[in-house]
Amino acid sequence: MSSSRISKVVVTPVAFADPPLLNVVGVHQPWALRAIVELHTDTGLVGLGETYADETHLARLDAVAQALPGSDPYDANALRRLVVDVLGKETGGAGASFGGMLDVSSAVDTVYSPFEVACLDLVGRETGRPVSDLLGGAVRDRVPFSGYLFYKWAGHPGSADGGPDDDWGEALNPDQIVAQAKRMVEGWGFGSLKLKGGVFHPDEECAAIEALRDAFPDLPLRLDPNGAWTPETSVKVAERLAGVVEYLEDPTPGIDGMAQVAARTDVPLATNMCVIAFEHLKPAIAADAVQIVLSDHHLWGGLRRSALLGGITDTFGMGLSMHSNSHLGVSLAAMVQLAAATPNLTYACDTHYPWKTQDVVRSGVLDFDDGSVAVPTGPGLGVELDRDLLGELHEQYLSCGVRRREDTVYMRSIEPGFTPNTSRW
Amino acid sequence: MSSSRISKVVVTPVAFADPPLLNVVGVHQPWALRAIVELHTDTGLVGLGETYADETHLARLDAVAQALPGSDPYDANALRRLVVDVLGKETGGAGASFGGMLDVSSAVDTVYSPFEVACLDLVGRETGRPVSDLLGGAVRDRVPFSGYLFYKWAGHPGSADGGPDDDWGEALNPDQIVAQAKRMVEGWGFGSLKLKGGVFHPDEECAAIEALRDAFPDLPLRLDPNGAWTPETSVKVAERLAGVVEYLEDPTPGIDGMAQVAARTDVPLATNMCVIAFEHLKPAIAADAVQIVLSDHHLWGGLRRSALLGGITDTFGMGLSMHSNSHLGVSLAAMVQLAAATPNLTYACDTHYPWKTQDVVRSGVLDFDDGSVAVPTGPGLGVELDRDLLGELHEQYLSCGVRRREDTVYMRSIEPGFTPNTSRW
Repeated sequence: MSSSRISKVVVTPVAFADPPLLNVVGVHQPWALRAIVELHTDTGLVGLGETYADETHLARLDAVAQALPGSDPYDANALRRLVVDVLGKETGGAGASFGGMLDVSSAVDTVYSPFEVACLDLVGRETGRPVSDLLGGAVRDRVPFSGYLFYKWAGHPGSADGGPDDDWGEALNPDQIVAQAKRMVEGWGFGSLKLKGGVFHPDEECAAIEALRDAFPDLPLRLDPNGAWTPETSVKVAERLAGVVEYLEDPTPGIDGMAQVAARTDVPLATNMCVIAFEHLKPAIAADAVQIVLSDHHLWGGLRRSALLGGITDTFGMGLSMHSNSHLGVSLAAMVQLAAATPNLTYACDTHYPWKTQDVVRSGVLDFDDGSVAVPTGPGLGVELDRDLLGELHEQYLSCGVRRREDTVYMRSIEPGFTPNTSRW
Repeated sequence: MSSSRISKVVVTPVAFADPPLLNVVGVHQPWALRAIVELHTDTGLVGLGETYADETHLARLDAVAQALPGSDPYDANALRRLVVDVLGKETGGAGASFGGMLDVSSAVDTVYSPFEVACLDLVGRETGRPVSDLLGGAVRDRVPFSGYLFYKWAGHPGSADGGPDDDWGEALNPDQIVAQAKRMVEGWGFGSLKLKGGVFHPDEECAAIEALRDAFPDLPLRLDPNGAWTPETSVKVAERLAGVVEYLEDPTPGIDGMAQVAARTDVPLATNMCVIAFEHLKPAIAADAVQIVLSDHHLWGGLRRSALLGGITDTFGMGLSMHSNSHLGVSLAAMVQLAAATPNLTYACDTHYPWKTQDVVRSGVLDFDDGSVAVPTGPGLGVELDRDLLGELHEQYLSCGVRRREDTVYMRSIEPGFTPNTSRW
């Protein structure tokens, strides 16, 4: 039996066109950044991972990449020690800025994640098994996703930025959100919908949710203002939308604030902001602050640690959903493999996937049908890089000028007085 | 790449000589029972598991064994569904009686466990990898164990029972316990010691611990009375043994009782009685009842679920140790593989292994040196059945007459007035 070792590591930053999607901290820049991690073995296999590509994060990825050759793809514990050693004391913040929305105390999990995923891809390729098998076996052959609705401008202001146009048009009121939802549902077949809020006054966003309810009487709906509201406002919104939304995601910032809201409503509260690392689970559970945690393998340290998170939410009677940043096909494949092997994934996953127009993986594997993606059954993640597309998106990275995600900086270039504070309402 | 399927399942009950070890519910019977599970694949591999062999448990194992052929060794989630389906509503109690000491509400985890272990053994054999690699990689090449001291009689009363003698002699007072410890330390090199208590008045057992401290000034010591004491007595013992024991294990029964004790002492409290299933973690953590959980893959549903338990204790800032019942080499190999891949296993593991004189695995792999066992590096669990020994121990099962573990029944055959109640002091 071959015992493959990692012989070469390639980290390729890429950029892909991103529409001007609005959120509580600003607006998506014209180009979204990702890094594609390739682990090559001495037996000729290639394992893939995908992560953020903010320049600080890239530098950390490169440092790990230097140290990785000779490693055993099976040995996740050694990989983690290597990441800890390489980062040394330079672990402050995530390196990935998350648009300024999240405060991550250690970069270990975010740096470790794409390498862990790529190692699982390698083990899957070596054994001829999909990654879902390595995680305990697929419990579903399709993974449902939620249609992710955004308030947005018609296009990026100032084409001098090199920003590409999109064909989604403006969405700044309930009618336009419903129109966007119709395109999402007709085009991808989504069986549930999520609205990214925190952009307008909560009354307007509630009206958009109510308009979605009228237009799609049977679809579960979610609203995520990314902590835009005070606890008091959150309770009022919860009262208005009780029975309308399946959950409210991060209505207000922080475990304490969420706990205040949770104590006053039966509407389930979800989070990908106040519980984003293992250290947050104990205080959040003690305060009964959230009923649903959104996992995210990019943030939680790869697929096995995300499976651990799933086991913890199961043990403590919490729901489990899945978060998404703007991403490409390697990430989607990893999300699908993880979701397939997670028995207690009780909600459709989030994905930004329909918002992108370019990819780095060969088409045909990750198609949406009825709002869901079939779990790839090929070895590993089940996707292959298209090296022409990878080169094209890398060229875009080199030429686009964006080097980190800065929703607020970009917004202020358009609206100088913009204030990104959460709890603004 | 071959995709092996389970083609045949063999469950063999075995019995091996067990000394008259005393505990809170009685005394070990002359014969300890285990079941050896063999999963054969259509590719000619054999995977091994070991579990309890009480007759109710055996019947459940046999029912699963009937349904298993055709299954994929990778698909742990499907295996679990199969166990749930086969058991149906017949899940009351564990089937394994644990000597009457534990109250397990569902048999799913105990029945699932040996099959899950055997599946991991198969995957390891198929991939040429030790099971520790399948669990994320060994973080240590040796696993330390604690020398497990017992009060005991010189021999089993009434040789008419067919009970074999042992050469350990009587241990009913501090001097005899120290002598037993010396043999354990000299023979196996243990670097820590555990005394099974709950047999005599706590003052006597404290005196034994103090005698051990005098005899072995540098060895960590533990005392486990299996819930023999009231909370009040437990606090008094904790005061007496503060700074002497590394932890007290189950001084008093139940999460509430343990929480009362924990609130009044800084001596860490460990348990394998009040937290023995995932459902117990939430209330125990909420009550801050225990500081250390003893995992046991036989009880917690196999190696991956025990790894989940390890991740939970890590997340919630709890210590992790490992429990043991009387067992043979297949169990020891699984314990070692699990312990090897558990970064936060913060204490030496328990084992009854030195108390047995017979085994079913070929010798040479699991030898103790300096109180620890080298992690097998061969494929799977790393151990092989000795079919002659297996046959011999199965013959002993057939002839010994013991069909379930009944420490209290056996004790009452000798001391008719024996009362097995915990909280007796």
